[in-house]
Amino acid sequence: MELLDKLKWRYAAKAMNGKRIPQEKIDRIIEAARLAPTSSGLQPFEIMVITNQQIKESIKPMAWHQSVITDCSHLLVFAAWDTYTAERINKMFDLTNEIRGFKNEGWENYRQMLLDSYPQRDPEENFNHAAKQAYIAFSQAIAAAAFEGVDATPIEGFDPTAVDRLLGLNEKGLRSAVLLPLGYRNTEADWLVNLIKVRKSTEDLVTLID
Amino acid sequence: MELLDKLKWRYAAKAMNGKRIPQEKIDRIIEAARLAPTSSGLQPFEIMVITNQQIKESIKPMAWHQSVITDCSHLLVFAAWDTYTAERINKMFDLTNEIRGFKNEGWENYRQMLLDSYPQRDPEENFNHAAKQAYIAFSQAIAAAAFEGVDATPIEGFDPTAVDRLLGLNEKGLRSAVLLPLGYRNTEADWLVNLIKVRKSTEDLVTLID
Repeated sequence: MELLDKLKWRYAAKAMNGKRIPQEKIDRIIEAARLAPTSSGLQPFEIMVITNQQIKESIKPMAWHQSVITDCSHLLVFAAWDTYTAERINKMFDLTNEIRGFKNEGWENYRQMLLDSYPQRDPEENFNHAAKQAYIAFSQAIAAAAFEGVDATPIEGFDPTAVDRLLGLNEKGLRSAVLLPLGYRNTEADWLVNLIKVRKSTEDLVTLID
Repeated sequence: MELLDKLKWRYAAKAMNGKRIPQEKIDRIIEAARLAPTSSGLQPFEIMVITNQQIKESIKPMAWHQSVITDCSHLLVFAAWDTYTAERINKMFDLTNEIRGFKNEGWENYRQMLLDSYPQRDPEENFNHAAKQAYIAFSQAIAAAAFEGVDATPIEGFDPTAVDRLLGLNEKGLRSAVLLPLGYRNTEADWLVNLIKVRKSTEDLVTLID
C-alpha cells in the first residue's frame, strides 16, 4: 500500500534547509487536514500557517530552541477551540443543513443533545476533547506531507501559553494544541536522518479477541 | 494526490454488511497505526482487535446501540496507557538502543528528563496525553482503511468505563480511548452514504501569518 511506503519514508526531521515549499503542496496538505473526520463533524480547531520569519524566531525559544521552528518553510499551529459553545455547535449544524439542502429530525435531535451537554461541561474537558479532534487532522496532514515529499516534524514540546499570547489565540477562543513545521530535511545537519525507525512490535501493540 | 482521493471517498459508515475483511488488509491497516509518530516515540497505547461476535454484542449497548459495532468485520479499540511509568518509558528507550545498536548521551539525557517528569504527573494528565498519541495512530488507521477500500467509523460515543471492565483493560494499565469498527458499507441501510460530505471552508479553517 502506497500509504505504508510514505509512512516509512517520513521521520521527524530535526534540521531543515529553509527551502520554500510550493503553495500547491501546502494547499493539499491543508486539504487533508480539512477533510479529516472529527467528532460530530464539529471540526473544533483552526490552523495558523506561519511563514513570517520574525514570528518563527519568536516561537523558537518557546519550543526548546528547536531549529526546525525557524528552518522550516511553513510552521503550522493547530489551535483547538477553548470550549464548545452553542454558537459554535449551531454554526456547524447550520452549515450541514445549508450544504445538504434539508433539515432532518434525527440530526436536529442530535444537535439539541450536544447543545444540552457540551457547553455546560468544564472548558478544560472541552478543550481536551477538541484537541483530540485537532490531532486527527494533524495526523492526516503529516501523512499528506509525506505524499508531497515534504518533511513534517510533530512538536508537542512547547509553551502553549506563550504561543497563545504571541498569536493572540485566546481572543479568538483558541488554544494551541500542537505544532507542525513543514519543510525539507537538511541531511548534513540532522542527527536523526540516518538512524533506524523504531517502533514496538505488532505483538506488543495488538491483542486479538476472536 | 492519492491520499486526498481516499479521504474524499471515506465517510463514517452508519451501517455495515457483516462481510469479513481479508487478514492482509487488516494487517496493513494495523501497520499504518504502528508506524504513526508519537510523542518521544513512546507509542503509549495498544490496539484490541475484536472479531468475536459475542464481545461485539456486549459492547453495542455501551455505544448507543450503534449497528456498526456488530455489523463490522473487525472492531478496533484504541486503548491508551493509564499513566506513564518509569518501566514503560525505559522499555521504549531500551528498545531504541537495542535496535539502533548504540547508546547516545543526548538520548539518555532525554530519557532522564522524561523519567524525572512524566511518572510524577497526575495520571489523568498522562492518560490524556497518551490518548492524543493514540489518536494520531487511529487517524492513520482510518486513512489506511480508505486505501484498502475498507470503511471505518470513528466512535467516541461510548462508555469507556464499561468497555474497560468488559475487556479487562485496567488490569493491563490501559483505558479505552476511541473505537474504530472496520467493515464494508451497507449502502441500502445507511442514511449517510449518499449525503454530501460537509467540512468548513478553508477560509474558516486557516489563518495565514506571513
